[in-house]
Amino acid sequence: MAGRRALKAVLIDLSGTLHIEDTAVPGAQDALNRLRQASVAIKFVTNTTKECKRNLLERLKRLNFDLTEKELFTSLSAARSLLEQKQLRPMLLVEDSALEDFTGVVTSEPNAVVIGLAPNHFSYQTLNRAFRMILEGAPIIAIHKARYYKRKDGLALGPGPFVAGLEYATDCKATVVGKPEKTFFAQALSDLGCSPSDAVMIGDDARDDVCGAQNAGMLGILVRTGKYREGDENKIDPPPHLTCNSFTDAVDHILQNLL
Amino acid sequence: MAGRRALKAVLIDLSGTLHIEDTAVPGAQDALNRLRQASVAIKFVTNTTKECKRNLLERLKRLNFDLTEKELFTSLSAARSLLEQKQLRPMLLVEDSALEDFTGVVTSEPNAVVIGLAPNHFSYQTLNRAFRMILEGAPIIAIHKARYYKRKDGLALGPGPFVAGLEYATDCKATVVGKPEKTFFAQALSDLGCSPSDAVMIGDDARDDVCGAQNAGMLGILVRTGKYREGDENKIDPPPHLTCNSFTDAVDHILQNLL
Repeated sequence: MAGRRALKAVLIDLSGTLHIEDTAVPGAQDALNRLRQASVAIKFVTNTTKECKRNLLERLKRLNFDLTEKELFTSLSAARSLLEQKQLRPMLLVEDSALEDFTGVVTSEPNAVVIGLAPNHFSYQTLNRAFRMILEGAPIIAIHKARYYKRKDGLALGPGPFVAGLEYATDCKATVVGKPEKTFFAQALSDLGCSPSDAVMIGDDARDDVCGAQNAGMLGILVRTGKYREGDENKIDPPPHLTCNSFTDAVDHILQNLL
Repeated sequence: MAGRRALKAVLIDLSGTLHIEDTAVPGAQDALNRLRQASVAIKFVTNTTKECKRNLLERLKRLNFDLTEKELFTSLSAARSLLEQKQLRPMLLVEDSALEDFTGVVTSEPNAVVIGLAPNHFSYQTLNRAFRMILEGAPIIAIHKARYYKRKDGLALGPGPFVAGLEYATDCKATVVGKPEKTFFAQALSDLGCSPSDAVMIGDDARDDVCGAQNAGMLGILVRTGKYREGDENKIDPPPHLTCNSFTDAVDHILQNLL
C-alpha cells in the first residue's frame, strides 16, 4: 500500500466474523491470538441493540475468545456516548437485556427517543408517546436502522421500520449511531489515538462493516462467513480492500502485507 | 368557466366540511338540500379507516343530513373494490368497527396486506406476520397514509407511519386507496357516468381534498372550517378553484356559477 502509513488498529466485527450464534468460526481464536502478538490495537465493534456488553463478553469467553470490556465498542455504547455528549435524558425503547449498558443515565422527564430492537415496546401506545415527544422537539436516536434480521423461525423486523415510521410521522430524521455510520467508526477509534487511514475493519457485512468503514476512511476486509452471500463484494463501491474466506485469512493478510 | 361543460357532479367531504365530530357546520343541512334541487349528482367521499358505512350514515342522520348508502364512497369501500378487482384475500389490519364493510370478503390463506388505523393490531408480532407475507409477494394496500390525526387528547399516529415502516422493511411501495389518490376520485365518479372535468370537490383539507381532486382533473373548493388553517390555500399548486368560508358558500358558488 504505497503512501499508507503502517497499520495501527484493527476493528473486528463479532457475529458472523468471529462466531455464528454459539459456534466459533474455525480457527478464529488462534488467528486472534496471532494478531495480538503484532503491535497493533484491537477493537471489537458490533451493532447490537439487545445484548449488553456483559452478555456479549460472556458469550465470547465461552467460545474461548480472549478480550476485555475496554476492547468492545457497540452501538449501545455509541448511543450512550451521544446521550452523554448532548446531555439528553432518553426514553429508552430497548429491551431489558440492553438496559444494563445505560445504568446511571437519567431517564426522568425524557427529552430524547432512543430506539433499538424492542418488540415489547413497539405497541401503538408507546410509539405514540415517542411520536408526541418528537413533535415537541425530542431528537430520534436510532441504535441502528436495520430493515430486518435473521431469527431461527425466519426473517423478522429490525428496529429500522419503527424508526422509519416515526421519521415519516414527524418529518424528522433520526441520528443513527451504529454501523455503517461514519461517527460510529470514528468513536471506535477515538481512544486508540489512531486516524482512520491507519486502521482496517474486518467483517461479514459488505454494507455495514466494509462499505461503512471505507466511507470513514479505513480499509475494509470482507470475510465469506456469516451473512456473506456470493457477489456481496460487487455490491459496494469502492469494492473491499480484500475479500477472503475467513477471519484467519484476513489476519494472515494483515500480518503479511499491512504491518 | 370558459371551455368547461356544465357541472354534473359534486363530491363532498364529511368530517370538517359538513360536521365537526357531533356538531353540524351551521347551515350545512339547508345548503345540501338546496344543492339537491339542482340537477347534479352528489357523492360523499371520506377517508375513514375505522368507521363502517352504517356508522357514518347513522351519525349523519342524527345531525339531520339526508343521504343514502349509495351516495357514500369511503376509503374502506375503495379498498374493498381493489381487493375484488384483483381477487385478493386480505389480512385485514383494521379495527373491528371497520370489519362490517368487508363482510363476505374471503380472508383465509391471505395474499394481501390491508392497513388502516388499527392500534389494536399494531403489535410487533402482527406487523411481523404482515412483513413476512409482503416478502413472499403480498401487495401492501393502505386505506390511506395519513401521518397523524387529531384526537381529543392530542395528536396521534395515523396509519401512514406503519405503512411507511413496512415499505422500508420490504423495499415495496404500498398502493394507497383513499384521498388524495387519483384513482379514489375516479372510482367515486365511476357510477355517475361523469368525467372529472364535469365534477367539483368540496372539502376542508387542502392536500387530500382539493389538491387531490384537482390532480384528478376536477375543480376543488376549499372551505375554511374543520382542519383548515390560515394560508392552507397557498400551500397547494395549482391553488383551489375557490376558497370560501363554509359549505354554504361553496354551494352558493356552485348554484350561481357552475351550473
